[in-house]
Amino acid sequence: MRDQRTVRCTYYLESEIPPEKAAALMAGEQSSGTFVPVPGESARIRERHAAQIVEVEELGVCPPSLASRAAPEKVRAALVTVDFPMENIGTDLATLHTTVAGNLFELGDLFACRLEALTLPEEFVSAHPGPAYGIGGTRELIGAAPGVLIGTIVKPNVGLSEDEFRLVVRELARASIDVIKDDELMTDPDYLPLERRVAVATEEIAAAEQVTGHPTMYAFNITGDLKGLRKRHDTVVRAGGRCVMLNIPVMGIPALEWLRSFTEVPIHGHRAGLAASMRAKGVGIDYQVWQQLARLAGADHLHVSGLGSKFYERDAQVTANVQSLLAPLGKTTTPLPVLSSGQNVTTPAPTFDAVGSTDLLMLAGGGVAAHPDGPAAGVRSLRAAWAAAVDGVPLTTAAAGRADDGDTDLLHAVQAFGRN
Amino acid sequence: MRDQRTVRCTYYLESEIPPEKAAALMAGEQSSGTFVPVPGESARIRERHAAQIVEVEELGVCPPSLASRAAPEKVRAALVTVDFPMENIGTDLATLHTTVAGNLFELGDLFACRLEALTLPEEFVSAHPGPAYGIGGTRELIGAAPGVLIGTIVKPNVGLSEDEFRLVVRELARASIDVIKDDELMTDPDYLPLERRVAVATEEIAAAEQVTGHPTMYAFNITGDLKGLRKRHDTVVRAGGRCVMLNIPVMGIPALEWLRSFTEVPIHGHRAGLAASMRAKGVGIDYQVWQQLARLAGADHLHVSGLGSKFYERDAQVTANVQSLLAPLGKTTTPLPVLSSGQNVTTPAPTFDAVGSTDLLMLAGGGVAAHPDGPAAGVRSLRAAWAAAVDGVPLTTAAAGRADDGDTDLLHAVQAFGRN
Repeated sequence: MRDQRTVRCTYYLESEIPPEKAAALMAGEQSSGTFVPVPGESARIRERHAAQIVEVEELGVCPPSLASRAAPEKVRAALVTVDFPMENIGTDLATLHTTVAGNLFELGDLFACRLEALTLPEEFVSAHPGPAYGIGGTRELIGAAPGVLIGTIVKPNVGLSEDEFRLVVRELARASIDVIKDDELMTDPDYLPLERRVAVATEEIAAAEQVTGHPTMYAFNITGDLKGLRKRHDTVVRAGGRCVMLNIPVMGIPALEWLRSFTEVPIHGHRAGLAASMRAKGVGIDYQVWQQLARLAGADHLHVSGLGSKFYERDAQVTANVQSLLAPLGKTTTPLPVLSSGQNVTTPAPTFDAVGSTDLLMLAGGGVAAHPDGPAAGVRSLRAAWAAAVDGVPLTTAAAGRADDGDTDLLHAVQAFGRN
Repeated sequence: MRDQRTVRCTYYLESEIPPEKAAALMAGEQSSGTFVPVPGESARIRERHAAQIVEVEELGVCPPSLASRAAPEKVRAALVTVDFPMENIGTDLATLHTTVAGNLFELGDLFACRLEALTLPEEFVSAHPGPAYGIGGTRELIGAAPGVLIGTIVKPNVGLSEDEFRLVVRELARASIDVIKDDELMTDPDYLPLERRVAVATEEIAAAEQVTGHPTMYAFNITGDLKGLRKRHDTVVRAGGRCVMLNIPVMGIPALEWLRSFTEVPIHGHRAGLAASMRAKGVGIDYQVWQQLARLAGADHLHVSGLGSKFYERDAQVTANVQSLLAPLGKTTTPLPVLSSGQNVTTPAPTFDAVGSTDLLMLAGGGVAAHPDGPAAGVRSLRAAWAAAVDGVPLTTAAAGRADDGDTDLLHAVQAFGRN
């Protein structure tokens, strides 16, 4: 039985040197070792502080994924599992990050080094509060909204005047949409400052709620300098805003952790920039790893890309992303997976088939704004598409049935976005 | 003549679709566009807020660097230069980062997307104070130390007891070393808390200074949660410490920017984890780009890997890293390039040949600690090797000459670390 006081990592490695030796080099660099033996690296230190190689699974010869100083003759790949002593790390997220995903990516003897899996001991997990709201807390703030939550991004992403912005929010809020969010590019520009966006959006949402009875949640992007983060959060909360958004990879996990320590509303976690350290086969980290850091740091909503999206991840990977978020992480509250990019009425069915859950937020940008009958019809068409998906009714059947009853929202969406 | 109010980026792209179209897709995603035309993307918005493609340099057919949703038949590469309107970004670093290195890495139509170069308008640069100390301020704090600064990392990286740590610092400080730093893995562990390290190291350094007259700078790693960052900084400053260290990629550029706003000592900027988003040919950012963000956010020292190191970057790239740091960035103070990994007496000559400057900090871990005659001899041997490099004297000639005069520090180092 393994020592519960270790952090277990599985890396995909490629090297010219034998996999065991490559693994030892990496484990040494990330714990008590250096490139040459130094005085003072005592048996006590090695025993208590050295990372332990638990398993090396050889995967055979392969073309090298990355360039390096060495000229590869024969590179072999392996999956290597390593245990890092918690004594080195404590329960600090930044120290964990540095240990499991720091200098090791620099090693010239490796032609690939990618952190594929991370298993944290209970002691580490329980030191962090995790999401304050998650799925349940988010639903409550949207009038106990059931099923898949439907959201959109204010489009165009950038450039709207205050009056144009007001009309977009008004139309969406009156359509009883669950969530509206800022684009990740939209922060606090002079032409439409955050303070004005907050004032306008909360006003429009409150007015619409008087009519619809449905409280729309707006995720205001408070990404920006840390000095002003609390002030921007307070601006949202004081105006009655129900959500703040952070571009987590750009801001850093510690910024998320800090925001969590004082936030009074859910944190919508965007992943803009994450692909820079996730997309290459040969280097970086897997989503499964990153989401654990983001959950422990307190993200209530986390982006996962989307099935059938315009982004690079294939549907199986997106499904795995969702499943990793819905899987337990100690006793922390479960965060809300956010599907985005190219989402429209054609995506609910394959998404529900793959993930088997309606604990999701589906963000459709063009899929709402570009509906031929307008954004309100876009929202209704997505709700109809999700109802069909959950009931197992084919999309075109559902669209035709509703059209027969005089409701053409879904039919027109299928005609506009259908891909057959 | 180009509009000075734009941020200019050059990307390496690969795509199946024609390079101009791929460039337009990327530029749209990162400014006013989305995947489908939406109402409200008016001519005014496109004109003022859309990114402009300045140049497309085709590089021909190539094997795809990254996997994607699409199955590539014929992928072509190109260098694409894009101007982003400052109106979208303002002068905020996190918004800049999101714009130039955010969601674009996700695009499934691209088989490579790497930000190779960034040119910021004067208006953006001058909105940031840059390093508070840089090369000059750092030298002053080390008794106006001239030439290449010699430093080391406390080794072993982790696991030393307080008494063992005390002896390591004592020996190094008495050897008049310029800089000692914590390993990036060493933050605030229970077995040797930061507060105790600060107390012990500042005490030993002050005592050594009484004997040597040389004030050693210790870079204390204050990486960790943001809530405690200021307190950890204050602990260092109150004890008379002269430098704080931050693992920048793990903490985030905004954390560095915030630390800069109150620091009373230079910030030693480590790059642990950066390779995750820098090493792959097909995705991420170049060092030339990252260093600009880190400089504007206020890093006084920045790691650049090292020539002849154990890390992946080849010598030409490390040289380019150093040169990019020593090149002007508006009116900001020049930061100190930090060479590390596998540095010892054999590296000064090729380093000086390549970069032609002594405005450097050379960190030698094993190269100091593993000197056969002890760390003090290690420090002296490195100073001797740098003197020889600057004077153009071959290393072995210098070592033999000094040995004839009874000084065997360099000779023994050459025997221990020489690679010929």
